[in-house]
Amino acid sequence: MSRRNWILNTIRSGFERHGMAPVETPAMENLSTLTGKYGEEGDQLIFRILNNGDYLAKADETALAEGNSKALTPSIAKKALRYDLTVPFARFVVMARNELSFPFRRYQIQTVWRGDRPGRGRYQEFTQCDADIIGSESLVSEFDLIQLFTEVLQELGIPGFEVVVNDRRILAGLAESWGVADRLTDLTVAMDKLDKVGAEGVDKELADRGFSEAVREGVQRVVQLTTQSDARLRLEATAAIAGEVPQAQAGIHDMRTLLNWCSGRPAAQHIVFDPTLARGLNYYTGAIFEVRVPEAPVGSICGGGRYADLTGIFGWPGVSGVGISFGADRIYDVCEHFGLFPEGQEAAHDVLVLRMDEQGTAGDLALVDELRAGGFRTVLYPEVAKLKKQLKFASDTQTDFVVFAGEQERAEGVVAIKDMARRREDRVAPSALIAHLSNWRTD
Amino acid sequence: MSRRNWILNTIRSGFERHGMAPVETPAMENLSTLTGKYGEEGDQLIFRILNNGDYLAKADETALAEGNSKALTPSIAKKALRYDLTVPFARFVVMARNELSFPFRRYQIQTVWRGDRPGRGRYQEFTQCDADIIGSESLVSEFDLIQLFTEVLQELGIPGFEVVVNDRRILAGLAESWGVADRLTDLTVAMDKLDKVGAEGVDKELADRGFSEAVREGVQRVVQLTTQSDARLRLEATAAIAGEVPQAQAGIHDMRTLLNWCSGRPAAQHIVFDPTLARGLNYYTGAIFEVRVPEAPVGSICGGGRYADLTGIFGWPGVSGVGISFGADRIYDVCEHFGLFPEGQEAAHDVLVLRMDEQGTAGDLALVDELRAGGFRTVLYPEVAKLKKQLKFASDTQTDFVVFAGEQERAEGVVAIKDMARRREDRVAPSALIAHLSNWRTD
Repeated sequence: MSRRNWILNTIRSGFERHGMAPVETPAMENLSTLTGKYGEEGDQLIFRILNNGDYLAKADETALAEGNSKALTPSIAKKALRYDLTVPFARFVVMARNELSFPFRRYQIQTVWRGDRPGRGRYQEFTQCDADIIGSESLVSEFDLIQLFTEVLQELGIPGFEVVVNDRRILAGLAESWGVADRLTDLTVAMDKLDKVGAEGVDKELADRGFSEAVREGVQRVVQLTTQSDARLRLEATAAIAGEVPQAQAGIHDMRTLLNWCSGRPAAQHIVFDPTLARGLNYYTGAIFEVRVPEAPVGSICGGGRYADLTGIFGWPGVSGVGISFGADRIYDVCEHFGLFPEGQEAAHDVLVLRMDEQGTAGDLALVDELRAGGFRTVLYPEVAKLKKQLKFASDTQTDFVVFAGEQERAEGVVAIKDMARRREDRVAPSALIAHLSNWRTD
Repeated sequence: MSRRNWILNTIRSGFERHGMAPVETPAMENLSTLTGKYGEEGDQLIFRILNNGDYLAKADETALAEGNSKALTPSIAKKALRYDLTVPFARFVVMARNELSFPFRRYQIQTVWRGDRPGRGRYQEFTQCDADIIGSESLVSEFDLIQLFTEVLQELGIPGFEVVVNDRRILAGLAESWGVADRLTDLTVAMDKLDKVGAEGVDKELADRGFSEAVREGVQRVVQLTTQSDARLRLEATAAIAGEVPQAQAGIHDMRTLLNWCSGRPAAQHIVFDPTLARGLNYYTGAIFEVRVPEAPVGSICGGGRYADLTGIFGWPGVSGVGISFGADRIYDVCEHFGLFPEGQEAAHDVLVLRMDEQGTAGDLALVDELRAGGFRTVLYPEVAKLKKQLKFASDTQTDFVVFAGEQERAEGVVAIKDMARRREDRVAPSALIAHLSNWRTD
């Protein structure tokens, strides 16, 4: 938990530094709000909540008689658990639109649930950390989010991460220039697999899907560009392939601007233009992002992009926005892989006050008050037990400092203190306790 | 959200100051882990998760044929949403017992779900904030939690809150002295209604339940004690009524010790011994707590108590502990009632950088970087729009400071700054920007 919190707090600080307002939505949404938003496969992974009480009384009798689970569900489960943070956010924006100031910037760190088969990097219950800027078409929002990625992932110390960018309009423009504008999804699904199946695999997939030799050659030219390591050269080469198709040129222009803005900033070390990046979700219409860590054995750890119309499904069309998501659980795996967690975060307290005898209880309680008021997270060992047992507890719980006042110390008017890690001990006047431990702490 | 976070952060700080370790458990538990733990009424309020896929294929056919919802449920819903934090914590402690150091102190701030009819102070989805100390019978733990209540509720500024305490053993001892030890639950359920139905109502309820005249007289003597405002006198009068019954005397002794420890500390202003406090949950066996705010129109805002055996239901009997719970949503209602939320918490950013023209973009982006690095939560207005529109946005979003560098400012090598609340303006050298705003902020 302390490690998870370290990650979540780092992400949260980034969101707040960028002026994002916190939003939370309920775990349960109406089932109808969620269905039809994630494709057929996604729909099947939504967790439904069984209606309370005698739910069979209102069940769909035909579906029941036929034993048809899918048809029965809407009549016995009116609610469901959120599947992502984007759809509930879109619903929220539409419902609250008269109270919000646009462009509206929000962040949301909450659990989502998916009925997937659990596996490495795939969980049934996991935490998403989303930020969106909605109600503006300006490219400065994209840049803002690229900087946010860079800052947060640098703060976490993740080595060699790549903020991969592309623009859906470039992909659409390429498809248009090859005469297959109507088959954009097929084309991008195939290109998106480059990481997994390589250039030949992509070609085979395109052939299987019936794309012509000319299209396959065009795709191979684009795929070959990814061997060019300089982002600007790669971008200009893509521009040359796309030619004069207006939407491709609009995308190229934006990518060029983003690269220029990154120049001379920390983001320049991480941004990578990749013309094969497609991102699965259909609602993206402009820039798309994905963060990869080539040296770590996980998939992408962050994603995002611009959508021209997310709130349309809830009756408010034409509101453009751009959003990103940090996958906290995969980031955890990456931090574990590289050993990035800061040390000394596990202990839940700084000081343990020992109980030497019953006569000392009032004094022990006063020590606890004083230590807590002095900024030390403090625990009183609850029982008068053997010193060895109490010190073992201090050590097991990674206590920094042990404080006690037994009969002898009380007679001399001092308090005994012990630095567990550095194995030093001292005896100080009660009035000097906080100052002394504070010195030890900053040593 | 910012108000909720203020409450949750205050509670969390209290937990951490007291050396509690953070724990989170999954929202979904196996249904069998939850059923049978909250009484029949509670069982019906648990939200069940419908199995994914073709759940009817494995449904209980007899229950299905009979239309018996209750009998069908276990075969089509294997998982459920957690109903409180206590049962999942007990499960966790048993599962992780070889990795934990006891006494184990944990806090947990998470959502719980109950299929209750929603109403004032009653929600289907709400946040509980629990802290438990498990693996010790020492009374210093009870005292620790009473101090925690006091500190957190004082920090929130809640006026006139009462930390009401009693001990189950006193109630059991009274029942024993009246010869009705076997009817303890009936007796305490009736006494617990004192707040709602008054002394006469309690008497009537006892008569309805068939208690003898002698018992009813005894109860009235105890009930009358609550008019005595001095906690110590009330306690000693209760001791006199309970007589020599050992378990009552053990409870009285502990209450006396707690009152002594509170003496001279902030908790002394809030602790109230109330011999009629019973708390509904059956697992409490020693001290019980409830926090009330007599001047606010809500029920109790916190509760808790000692349990001799919470983990026994999961196969590890005889582990004593004591726990408390802050009801964050009711505390929110109380804070709203008294107007306790701090001002200026709503804004999600401190500074808005305006966009005066496209030529200034690079400079605007540099200002944003500088302000964020200087500790200001900063937003760049995304579009070059009319000044009036941008300033309206600044005002609507409760921006503290506006910063801009238009053509004129750039020509003169200065940055314009504006303090929205105090309506003051200035023009400063870029190198003096952070220092100047920091001065304004601490003014």
